[in-house]
Amino acid sequence: MTRVYNFSAGPAILPEAVLQQAREEMLDWRGSGMSVMEMSHRGKEFVSIAAEAEADLRDLLAIPENYKVLFLQGGASAQFAAVPFNLLRGKTSADYVNTGSWSKKAISEAKKHAGVNVAASGEASNFMSIPAQSEWQLDPNAAYLHYTPNETISGVEFHWVPETGDVPLVADMSSTILSRPIDVSRFGMIYAGAQKNIGPAGLTIVIVREDLLGHASPLTPSVLDYKVQADADSMSNTPPTYSWYLAGLVFKWLKEQGGLSAMAELNKRKAEKLYRAIDESSFYSNPVDPACRSWMNVPFLLADDALNKTFLAEAQEVGLTTLAGHRSVGGMRASIYNAMPEAGVDRLLAFMQEFERRNG
Amino acid sequence: MTRVYNFSAGPAILPEAVLQQAREEMLDWRGSGMSVMEMSHRGKEFVSIAAEAEADLRDLLAIPENYKVLFLQGGASAQFAAVPFNLLRGKTSADYVNTGSWSKKAISEAKKHAGVNVAASGEASNFMSIPAQSEWQLDPNAAYLHYTPNETISGVEFHWVPETGDVPLVADMSSTILSRPIDVSRFGMIYAGAQKNIGPAGLTIVIVREDLLGHASPLTPSVLDYKVQADADSMSNTPPTYSWYLAGLVFKWLKEQGGLSAMAELNKRKAEKLYRAIDESSFYSNPVDPACRSWMNVPFLLADDALNKTFLAEAQEVGLTTLAGHRSVGGMRASIYNAMPEAGVDRLLAFMQEFERRNG
Repeated sequence: MTRVYNFSAGPAILPEAVLQQAREEMLDWRGSGMSVMEMSHRGKEFVSIAAEAEADLRDLLAIPENYKVLFLQGGASAQFAAVPFNLLRGKTSADYVNTGSWSKKAISEAKKHAGVNVAASGEASNFMSIPAQSEWQLDPNAAYLHYTPNETISGVEFHWVPETGDVPLVADMSSTILSRPIDVSRFGMIYAGAQKNIGPAGLTIVIVREDLLGHASPLTPSVLDYKVQADADSMSNTPPTYSWYLAGLVFKWLKEQGGLSAMAELNKRKAEKLYRAIDESSFYSNPVDPACRSWMNVPFLLADDALNKTFLAEAQEVGLTTLAGHRSVGGMRASIYNAMPEAGVDRLLAFMQEFERRNG
Repeated sequence: MTRVYNFSAGPAILPEAVLQQAREEMLDWRGSGMSVMEMSHRGKEFVSIAAEAEADLRDLLAIPENYKVLFLQGGASAQFAAVPFNLLRGKTSADYVNTGSWSKKAISEAKKHAGVNVAASGEASNFMSIPAQSEWQLDPNAAYLHYTPNETISGVEFHWVPETGDVPLVADMSSTILSRPIDVSRFGMIYAGAQKNIGPAGLTIVIVREDLLGHASPLTPSVLDYKVQADADSMSNTPPTYSWYLAGLVFKWLKEQGGLSAMAELNKRKAEKLYRAIDESSFYSNPVDPACRSWMNVPFLLADDALNKTFLAEAQEVGLTTLAGHRSVGGMRASIYNAMPEAGVDRLLAFMQEFERRNG
C-alpha cells in the first residue's frame, strides 16, 4: 500500500496514526466485542468515548467553563440556518462580513430569517483581501456578527479577531479550527464542520456561550436547538457516534503533537514555505493579499492555464492528489490542514520546481 | 478477539463481513492511497461509491424511477422537522398516527408547523396494539399522513400498509427498512435513520416521490430542503461520506444474502422463535398484541423484576449484550435487526431457558 499526499479541501487527509488505530479497533473496541459503530450511544462504552473527546477538545482550545460544546450533524451548512434560528433572540437583524463563497452562503441562509447588514465585504478586491475593521459598518443593535475566519476557495484568512463589543461574535471555523490557539472568550459562538481539521464528514462542532442558549425561535428543528442539545449532552437524538469517536482520536493525536501552539508553528512554516516558493517563481502566482493569506488553503495559478491538466496528471503520478482549484476559480489549490505532514508540502514544492524547470 | 451478540436497539450490530471489509480498506481504498473518509465528495472515487450505493438500494427496494433517494444527515429526528417543512405544501394540517414513543416525537415537532390531527392512537391499549384502519379518523384535506411502521421501544409493528387515497403516506421506517420487501409506490415519502438496519449513525435515507418536491416553506434550512438536495445529488453540502460508504457495503451484503425476500424469511423466523419461547414460558412474558409484534425489537419481562440485574449480568458474561429494555418500559429488549445472525437468537434462547431453569 502506498499512501498519497492528499491536498483535498475537505473531506481531507487524516493523521495516518488515527486511521491505523481506527483499523485496529474496527471489530472490537478495547475488548468490548463491538465496533464503536455498533455501540448504543447511551451505553457506558460510548459515553466514555464521548466524554473523553469533549474533555480533550476543551483542553486543546482552553474552552472556558461557561461554554457548551455540542457534537451535532449537518455540517456548517446546517449551522447557517441554526445560527439565526438560535441567536436572533427576538432581534430583527444581524451583521455579516462577506469575505467570499462561504460567507455568501451563510448570508443567503440568514436572509430567510432576518435582515442582514453586510458590515464589510471583500467584493471590491474580488475577495483577494479582507477590509480592515476600521472600514466596517457595524450595527450596535445587531443580534450577532457572523464571519468566516478562513475561506477555503479563495484562500483568504483572518489573522486577527474582530472586535464587536457587546454584540456576540459568531465564527464559521470549519477550515481553520484547531490550526492554532484561539481565545474562545472573544466569541459568542464558534462552529465547524469536521471534515477538514477534526475528522470525517458528518460531524459538526458547536461551541456556544451559555447565556446565548434558550432563545431559539419557534420553528427551530429540535435537533438544531442548542439548548435542547446542550441539556441532553448532544444526545437529544442519536449522535454521529463513529465520527465523534474519530474526532476524539484526532484530538488525542493533536495533544501528542504538542497541542495547538505546536500545530500553529508547523502550519505557519508549511504555509510560508509554499507562499515563498510561489512568490519567488515567475511561473506560479497567488493573487491574495499577503496580509490575509490562508495557512490552510493555498490556491495558486500556473503561468499558462493550458498546462493545468498536465500538472494535475503528473502530480497524481508522484502521489500528490486533489490539487485542482475549486471550479469557480480554476488553477490549483493545496489544502494543508493539520494532518498534512511537512514532508507532503516538501514533496509538493519539489514537484512544482521540477515541473517549472521542464515547462517554465 | 471475541465478538459479542449485541442486541442494541440502535446504533446496532453490523454484519461482521462489512466491518472486515471496512477494516481492510481503512487506509487505502482500492489502491487510491486514501481512506474513504479522506476523499473529496466530488472526486471520481467517492462519486462512484455514492452512485453504487444508491443503485444497490434502488435495486433492493425496487424503488420506482419517479422517486428520489437522498443521503442526508440529522437522523429521523431531523426528518420530524423536515417533513412538515417540505410536505405541508401550503396546507394547514397533517394526519398523524400515534403508536408510541417515536410517533409522539414526530407529532410534537410537527405541531410547531401545523395543525396535527391524530387520526388514530394506540394509547387506550398503552400502545400494546395498533387500531384497525376502520377506526381511523382521516382528514381528506390533510397534507399527508405520517406513521411509524415500527416502534422500537414498545415493540409494535405494522404488518400492513395504511390506505390513504390521494393523501401522501409518509413513514418513519428507521427500525424496519430493509427488513422485508415493501411496495414503495404506496408511499409519498419514506425516511430512515441509518443506525439500525442500514449502517452507522449519522446518515439518514430519504425516499421521496418527485411530485412532492419543490414546495418547501420559506424557513426550511437548505440542508433539509428535499428539492435542493435532490437537484444536487445529496451534495448541496458535504454529505456524511464514510457512513454513505458503509451503507453501500451493507446493501451489497444484503444482496449477497439473497435480498429482502430472503431477509424477510430469516427475520420472521428469528422473531417467531423468540416470541414462541416467551409465550410458552410462564417465566417470560411479552404484552404486545400478537397481530402487531415487531420482527425487529422484542421486549420481554421477567416474572420477577428483581432478577433483571442478574439476567443482564449473566447474559453479558456469555456474550449477549445490550439487552436492557428502554428505561421508560423496563424489562428486557432484544433488537434483532438484519445483521443479528440466527445463531445469536439461538444463543439468547438457550441462555433464557437455562436462566429460567435456575431461577424460575
